[in-house]
Amino acid sequence: MHFSSEQRLDDDVVEREFTLGEIPGILWTPAALSPDSAPAPLILIGHPPLGLGRMYPRLAGRARHYVAEYGFAAATIELPGCGVRPRWAAAEQARADLRRAMAMESGGVVGGEIIDALILPLVDRAVPEWQAVLDELLSLPGIGGPVGYEGGVISIGVRLAVVEPRIVAAGLFAGSLVPAAVFEEARRVTIPLHVLLQWDDEGNDRQAALDLFDAFGSREKTLHANLGGHTGVPQFELDTGARFFARHLTGEPR
Amino acid sequence: MHFSSEQRLDDDVVEREFTLGEIPGILWTPAALSPDSAPAPLILIGHPPLGLGRMYPRLAGRARHYVAEYGFAAATIELPGCGVRPRWAAAEQARADLRRAMAMESGGVVGGEIIDALILPLVDRAVPEWQAVLDELLSLPGIGGPVGYEGGVISIGVRLAVVEPRIVAAGLFAGSLVPAAVFEEARRVTIPLHVLLQWDDEGNDRQAALDLFDAFGSREKTLHANLGGHTGVPQFELDTGARFFARHLTGEPR
Repeated sequence: MHFSSEQRLDDDVVEREFTLGEIPGILWTPAALSPDSAPAPLILIGHPPLGLGRMYPRLAGRARHYVAEYGFAAATIELPGCGVRPRWAAAEQARADLRRAMAMESGGVVGGEIIDALILPLVDRAVPEWQAVLDELLSLPGIGGPVGYEGGVISIGVRLAVVEPRIVAAGLFAGSLVPAAVFEEARRVTIPLHVLLQWDDEGNDRQAALDLFDAFGSREKTLHANLGGHTGVPQFELDTGARFFARHLTGEPR
Repeated sequence: MHFSSEQRLDDDVVEREFTLGEIPGILWTPAALSPDSAPAPLILIGHPPLGLGRMYPRLAGRARHYVAEYGFAAATIELPGCGVRPRWAAAEQARADLRRAMAMESGGVVGGEIIDALILPLVDRAVPEWQAVLDELLSLPGIGGPVGYEGGVISIGVRLAVVEPRIVAAGLFAGSLVPAAVFEEARRVTIPLHVLLQWDDEGNDRQAALDLFDAFGSREKTLHANLGGHTGVPQFELDTGARFFARHLTGEPR
């Protein structure tokens, strides 16, 4: 893992850009972090495949809250085929198909073949990348387990929750563009889940999202539904999510 | 309003029993409350018609959290026809009908006539009682607006949210035993709502509860769904609800 930049932000959060092989990413840590302090829990921050540059303000806002208010470390990576990373033809085709289908269907109900073609290869590539980055992050001084995952592309979160035992809690953004195979994987998720659902989400089918929540095998799962449209998650949910992780990553009833 | 007892509890909460006419109730306030301090916001705590004595431990637990942690005042009253209050024959008949219907239906789906007979008279009687108690409570030294309502018999909460302008935010427990007339009233609710839904509630129909959440006219409404069965609301939701009220009754981003 190669660090290419480091800056100390005004909330005493240190932001570092890194690359691991061809994967770019960003790590946020408390400035006070030292090899002598107790290892900080780590939050992996996921996001939709729109490019890290475009997503940066929202991701950094969440990361800096976790770090400054709770003393966690937080990290995100660029998804394969996005941002500065090489495109692959099949993914470009699947995205074009999705855009066309959503424009035609106008309610966000899209056929299973298009969803599979778009999402399954992304999950298959992104999950091992997250795991390789996780190996490296946990070897850094001051960062220890346990690990939480939060954010978009719910299918990546589901797969990680099933295959990666170091992830002990997940905060997911309920979407409906979920392949049938991932829906079945959801039944095998057993870690505590905190699921955000935008009740009036113009890009997701509400019933499909509720069905997915119902399918999760976790004994502790909480659904938070709010108004505000696809991108209108209320500001107060930022801290609700942080407190969920505080309960499960530190054992403290914050 | 006549106070019949007063005790100071070990979390510096003062608990006083009162009666207003034939209505018994309990008021919890911070011990530090004085006529000179800023008036405390007030939370009205509702509950199902099972009698104040039986409900006391749960109600006092919520009230003392609001008072000790947030400096609010909190109050509850006995519902008409419950506990030590005189029964009325029609309500007793409606309850017997409900028990019989639920035993037969085994899924909590009960006919509209039974629900109407049970709930509508309770709402019609309880709401003016709450308002009379509210008049008295707000005239006490140290207690001021704004006012929140929280707790069970969701139909009482809905009616109060529509008719009582001093109530500016409500935390409701999503049930499905809601008369059709109250469902229509829900569309006229505009205050911020925090709705708890037990996803695996053996006594309520999930889809009916989701439909009711959908019907609320409020621009800010949040649904929190959890596992744990009818009485198994997770402990962490106590503080989530308190923070909702802190946002709306004090303007502080707690």
